[in-house]
Amino acid sequence: MKTINGPLDKLIILDLTRVLAGPYATMVLSDLGARVIKVESPEGDDSRKFGPFIKGSSTYFSSLNRNKESIVLNLKIEKEKKIFLKLLSNADVLVENYRPGVLSKLGLSPNSLMKKFPKLIIASCSGFGQNGPWKKKPAYDVIVQALGGIMSLTGYENTEPVRVGSSIGDITAGLFTVIGIQAALYHRNYTNKGKHIDISMLDCQIAILENAISRYDSEKKIPKKLGSRHPSISPFEAYKCKDDYIVVAAGNDNLFKKLCVCLNANHLIENNNFKKNNKRLKNADKLKNIIEKILKKHNSLYWIRKLEKSGVPVGKVNNIKEAINLKQIKSRNMIVKVKKDNVIKLKVAGNPIKISGFKDSLYRNEAPKINADRKKILEDFKIKDI
Amino acid sequence: MKTINGPLDKLIILDLTRVLAGPYATMVLSDLGARVIKVESPEGDDSRKFGPFIKGSSTYFSSLNRNKESIVLNLKIEKEKKIFLKLLSNADVLVENYRPGVLSKLGLSPNSLMKKFPKLIIASCSGFGQNGPWKKKPAYDVIVQALGGIMSLTGYENTEPVRVGSSIGDITAGLFTVIGIQAALYHRNYTNKGKHIDISMLDCQIAILENAISRYDSEKKIPKKLGSRHPSISPFEAYKCKDDYIVVAAGNDNLFKKLCVCLNANHLIENNNFKKNNKRLKNADKLKNIIEKILKKHNSLYWIRKLEKSGVPVGKVNNIKEAINLKQIKSRNMIVKVKKDNVIKLKVAGNPIKISGFKDSLYRNEAPKINADRKKILEDFKIKDI
Repeated sequence: MKTINGPLDKLIILDLTRVLAGPYATMVLSDLGARVIKVESPEGDDSRKFGPFIKGSSTYFSSLNRNKESIVLNLKIEKEKKIFLKLLSNADVLVENYRPGVLSKLGLSPNSLMKKFPKLIIASCSGFGQNGPWKKKPAYDVIVQALGGIMSLTGYENTEPVRVGSSIGDITAGLFTVIGIQAALYHRNYTNKGKHIDISMLDCQIAILENAISRYDSEKKIPKKLGSRHPSISPFEAYKCKDDYIVVAAGNDNLFKKLCVCLNANHLIENNNFKKNNKRLKNADKLKNIIEKILKKHNSLYWIRKLEKSGVPVGKVNNIKEAINLKQIKSRNMIVKVKKDNVIKLKVAGNPIKISGFKDSLYRNEAPKINADRKKILEDFKIKDI
Repeated sequence: MKTINGPLDKLIILDLTRVLAGPYATMVLSDLGARVIKVESPEGDDSRKFGPFIKGSSTYFSSLNRNKESIVLNLKIEKEKKIFLKLLSNADVLVENYRPGVLSKLGLSPNSLMKKFPKLIIASCSGFGQNGPWKKKPAYDVIVQALGGIMSLTGYENTEPVRVGSSIGDITAGLFTVIGIQAALYHRNYTNKGKHIDISMLDCQIAILENAISRYDSEKKIPKKLGSRHPSISPFEAYKCKDDYIVVAAGNDNLFKKLCVCLNANHLIENNNFKKNNKRLKNADKLKNIIEKILKKHNSLYWIRKLEKSGVPVGKVNNIKEAINLKQIKSRNMIVKVKKDNVIKLKVAGNPIKISGFKDSLYRNEAPKINADRKKILEDFKIKDI
């Protein structure tokens, strides 16, 4: 019933993670072929309770835990912890996103586990990391988006705060967790030793601020919210046509020239206010007014076709229905089907990592009911149940 | 002058990338210890022209290319291409973010390179991927943010479009590129064969939509912009206090109870409109009004302290200055210094992947001037210059 073959086919992941950041990381590993065994507490992953539901099953949980296996182990009970340790002796990687200290309280501190299993790679993904004054503080996505500064760059000045509309606080932490794990796997290859990876969601927010930090450091001006505008490139934002918005990104002088020609506004090319990117950036409001005055004469489709023909980067602001139905997205197999007993249950995002020589699977197995794979998992590793 | 020791110490990356997605990927690899040799065209990386500048050097370029080496090779000239191929024979990984087809035109198609160098891993990161109807279309960050749907989830309904305030169109593509490269490295370890990785910025936007796709698929309602609100959890958004906004994330019923106690609003706990997350979600506007009426009695700092004491996830909406000066960020070494000849030139984001047994360096070398490392690179690999 394996739906995926990938470069990580030989890898076995023991997955103690819940909700989003950790499960996203192990989903990415699973999409690359790894076997992910989700070890749940008797109450199960919190996100099993997040709607919307299909026949009582959380689609939120399904979208992240497709293709994983589930076993329930109560790590507070000695006998069940023993099973966990036996599983661990067969695993390459342990991933967890408890608050720092929780594993230690269970008698499973990363240090003790590394001594016991010197080849094991342990990845801890938490809100604020394993050290520092805030290590024990609880975090959810919106908290790290707010603390880390990205919300101060997103939206418009003088309106209510805007959160990035998907949980990139968790998701980027999940991605860095995967990168850390794989780096440790590379290193283990010639040292035969595991490592402990420590990822903080807040740290990851700092890591994705692009050049906001260096801009602040060099100019001492606090970067502001710019709506749809890029802070360092112009023209690079959304513009209103007669009917709707389009985004245009003329990332260099040559593309700006092409844009001007399309707009029948050749006089802008040699205008000193707009000739170079730094000038355009300073006069971005003025430029936007001029561009929109022209764009408003026709519908968005007219302009998209015209600009595309000239090679100017342009696009529509798609909603989710439009985005997942793009021909390009379909031809890239970016929407895959979650199935159970060959019945399609749900559509979810596919794997964006396309690798030569591996078939890009059209399907994923449905996320497991809690404890659903207990028997098979214990049999596979020749462990006696209690 | 190596500033970093990490798990990828033995890895040699030949880097043909420009601007953001590719350079971000090789920056992450460099932060893990890899040697990154940036092969630039005679004109150099476009982003060398993005401001702000310090003494003529782009801080945008510096923040992404710190710690890399630069050599100029004009791949259109046979003699220089030969040098490139000699370098390639010494490299583990080639990363490129040209538009699909450009490498082939230079006589360097991924297929031909894989035949010539069977162990080489090639990673191609482009706007739309190596196949499909849009493969040749140009893309910049705002284009894929718009096409991929995240802009339709970000901001408020009925205001102008909002772009995520950092270029996550590029950055997430960079992260998935790193994951693809490392997965191929793991696979190479037991097959001795390289792979070609094909990453599309647009695909990566689909991959980070969280549960928006499954929500749409199960409910057939197009997900909307929710300001700072989470689509599946409540209360989980920004609230106005007397002076300023705070974000609160009560991710489960227990945290909601704690929140109510802090707000002196115990009557909400058993109120049927708010008792369970799905009810709170339906009545999120009503709940927000009640919460804000109470929060407006005191300043944000009062509420942050009170909620923190009770373990309710809470935070301030920080600007960049506040974010990079957080004690937690400092204690995690998330702001590092770029230096040249021991003079500090710039502050940039550090490495969010903390790994046991490796010192987390406080410094990075300044990004190279164009062609600055030519001599050393050619000497290291015993290649004669033309």
